Amino acid sequence: MALLVQKYGGTSVGSVERIKNVAERIAEFYRQGHDLIVVVSAMSGVTDQLLQLASQLHPEPSEREIDVLLSTGEQTTIALLSIALHALKIPAVSLTGAQAGIVTDGKHTRAKILNISPKRIKELLQQRNVVVVAGFQGQNVEGHITTLGRGGSDLTAIALSAVFHAECCQIYTDVEGVYTADPRIVPTARKIDEISYDELLEMAASGSKVMQARSVEFAKKFKVPFEVRSSFTNVAGTIVKEEVSAMEKVVVRAVSLEPSQAKVTILGVPDKPGIAAKVFCRLAEAEINVDMIVQNISDHGLTDITFTVHKNFLKKALVALESVVSEISAREVRATEGIAKLSVVGIGMRSHSGVAAKLFSSLAEAGINVQMISTSEIKISVIIDEKEGKRAAQIVHDAFQLNNPL
Amino acid sequence: MALLVQKYGGTSVGSVERIKNVAERIAEFYRQGHDLIVVVSAMSGVTDQLLQLASQLHPEPSEREIDVLLSTGEQTTIALLSIALHALKIPAVSLTGAQAGIVTDGKHTRAKILNISPKRIKELLQQRNVVVVAGFQGQNVEGHITTLGRGGSDLTAIALSAVFHAECCQIYTDVEGVYTADPRIVPTARKIDEISYDELLEMAASGSKVMQARSVEFAKKFKVPFEVRSSFTNVAGTIVKEEVSAMEKVVVRAVSLEPSQAKVTILGVPDKPGIAAKVFCRLAEAEINVDMIVQNISDHGLTDITFTVHKNFLKKALVALESVVSEISAREVRATEGIAKLSVVGIGMRSHSGVAAKLFSSLAEAGINVQMISTSEIKISVIIDEKEGKRAAQIVHDAFQLNNPL
Repeated sequence: MALLVQKYGGTSVGSVERIKNVAERIAEFYRQGHDLIVVVSAMSGVTDQLLQLASQLHPEPSEREIDVLLSTGEQTTIALLSIALHALKIPAVSLTGAQAGIVTDGKHTRAKILNISPKRIKELLQQRNVVVVAGFQGQNVEGHITTLGRGGSDLTAIALSAVFHAECCQIYTDVEGVYTADPRIVPTARKIDEISYDELLEMAASGSKVMQARSVEFAKKFKVPFEVRSSFTNVAGTIVKEEVSAMEKVVVRAVSLEPSQAKVTILGVPDKPGIAAKVFCRLAEAEINVDMIVQNISDHGLTDITFTVHKNFLKKALVALESVVSEISAREVRATEGIAKLSVVGIGMRSHSGVAAKLFSSLAEAGINVQMISTSEIKISVIIDEKEGKRAAQIVHDAFQLNNPL
Repeated sequence: MALLVQKYGGTSVGSVERIKNVAERIAEFYRQGHDLIVVVSAMSGVTDQLLQLASQLHPEPSEREIDVLLSTGEQTTIALLSIALHALKIPAVSLTGAQAGIVTDGKHTRAKILNISPKRIKELLQQRNVVVVAGFQGQNVEGHITTLGRGGSDLTAIALSAVFHAECCQIYTDVEGVYTADPRIVPTARKIDEISYDELLEMAASGSKVMQARSVEFAKKFKVPFEVRSSFTNVAGTIVKEEVSAMEKVVVRAVSLEPSQAKVTILGVPDKPGIAAKVFCRLAEAEINVDMIVQNISDHGLTDITFTVHKNFLKKALVALESVVSEISAREVRATEGIAKLSVVGIGMRSHSGVAAKLFSSLAEAGINVQMISTSEIKISVIIDEKEGKRAAQIVHDAFQLNNPL
């Protein structure tokens, strides 16, 4: 029988009833003879409650202490889930991140996993225990508790899968898998059976909320295939793995839409080396996450630089640019809100031409104006009016026939 | 400046506001130049909530997992208190029991502290940090999380005081100290300035709820003087320490009353060796906590054995006795509820006669009947009608003039 790593997110363990359901599911796999490492998050809402307490005590609580505080969330869940498994006569032992041998660097609230000492988990598995591990947390070499940041429990599951050469890593969540588009936006969206790491990565960067890009990159790096599936149904999910040649037959895998964007254009920028560096270093110092950047060829030694940010960062971005604009002798800065980014993603694009043409013409036929374009090897993104976002996503989804099963 | 160990109980850290108040108090001591190790409990109510969750999953949750679960309570408090101290510009670092080097045996939910590795705390103190330690918890040599059972945070504080030779160990609670009687029962009760370990131990065994006997025994064993005081006022509390000869001047230190008792008499027991052992072994097997035991001289080879238990254990005790009664050929078993135990405690009793006489006559004058008597070197206990308990406590308190300051 195989070794499975399963990860259950906060919604899946959000109540006593749900913890019982998760225990039933684990018990079923256990009784089939599988070895199981189960990674859990804090019960949904708990992390926010704890942060709320901390914020009442200090406007900027120490990151070290936030890690001590937040790590109690998963610790609570591992104990409760183990107890629920005992009630089903399944031997189970809980381990905190530190106990599980998860060693991280010292960057509190956003630590990186450095290595995992497998000894303790290995022993517990050999004694036929389900090993229930607290996700999202570890300890650094000095023994301080650390947390891994957003999507940290997925990281824990994938790292454990890599170290223990798990046959399968199942990421249980509240959706049934990865879809060709967000079903709330495109009702005809279809669940994808298999997708490559790179495609999911491009989707994560394009507003798809299934998984943090970080966890997917980590899985890619360590070649850990995983399945995204729902803890509320028994339906097979989406397998995420290294690309195989058959995957290239599908030119576009999915459409994603990221609303609430804003664009900023710096007009009349002298076309000299180091100008763009100056602009984006200043934005980086201000911790502004810039998404698309477009610069066209210059005219009479002057050019325009446009970039997009989430609209929540627009004000901060404009403040950060104030001084730099005169430093680089640019003419002026213009900002627009109310835009959305629409992307099509697919590794098949590399070997198929005409994807861009089809995308642009389908939007043009519907009278939707394309304001900016940016491409990667396996993705084409366009900026459109936010009000047209939903309609555009449906049109593009149809144009690439994503509702048809393969 | 001195090293202080302070312990704050669940009520003292029961809300964000109270944690802020505790931080203010600690900050004041810190600014005076003291080194501080602060031990905290879980916020009041948290432990019960966690146990409630566990009980919904399993009627008898695994003790190992209960320890993993409950230890999150103190871990939450250490982080929050450290954050509150930072808000007052006081450097503070939190440590879980395991991080603080508290090594226990492996008896989950009632572990004993085996030793404390002082290295980490010492370093943090040398860097002038307030070290905030999670009470009630530790880890065993295999790295499993353990908890110390009831009163465990007091134990942590006293053990740390012993290891670090603290100048003073302050146990902050919701009462101002140890009283000559429970002020809710005897309104003229007075706070005691100094009391010996043995006196407090006898009081703990007699229903005084200030501290668990276990923590007092531990303090006595390691000769750690401590102060019980309130976290809500700035009034000096009660110093608990080894007895000094001046203490003997006070014949009776305090009166305590334990209501809700029941007595069980086994009548017509053959006066042979091994009979009492048989009875009380059977009760111990059934985990019944027997308090007073009285056996008088025998008459015609038969004797009566009487013992008291908390009334909640009466039914269980009678069930446990059923078989043993015929085994030892006793005549019958009689049980009475509605009784209370009144005790007077004082190390001065050892060198002063007439305490028993004064106790019995004061009760007799008030028409209160004494049903059973039991004595130790520094305590006399009597069983009386529960309905007379409050009046009796007041009468005895007056008789020994406990309301007069020394």
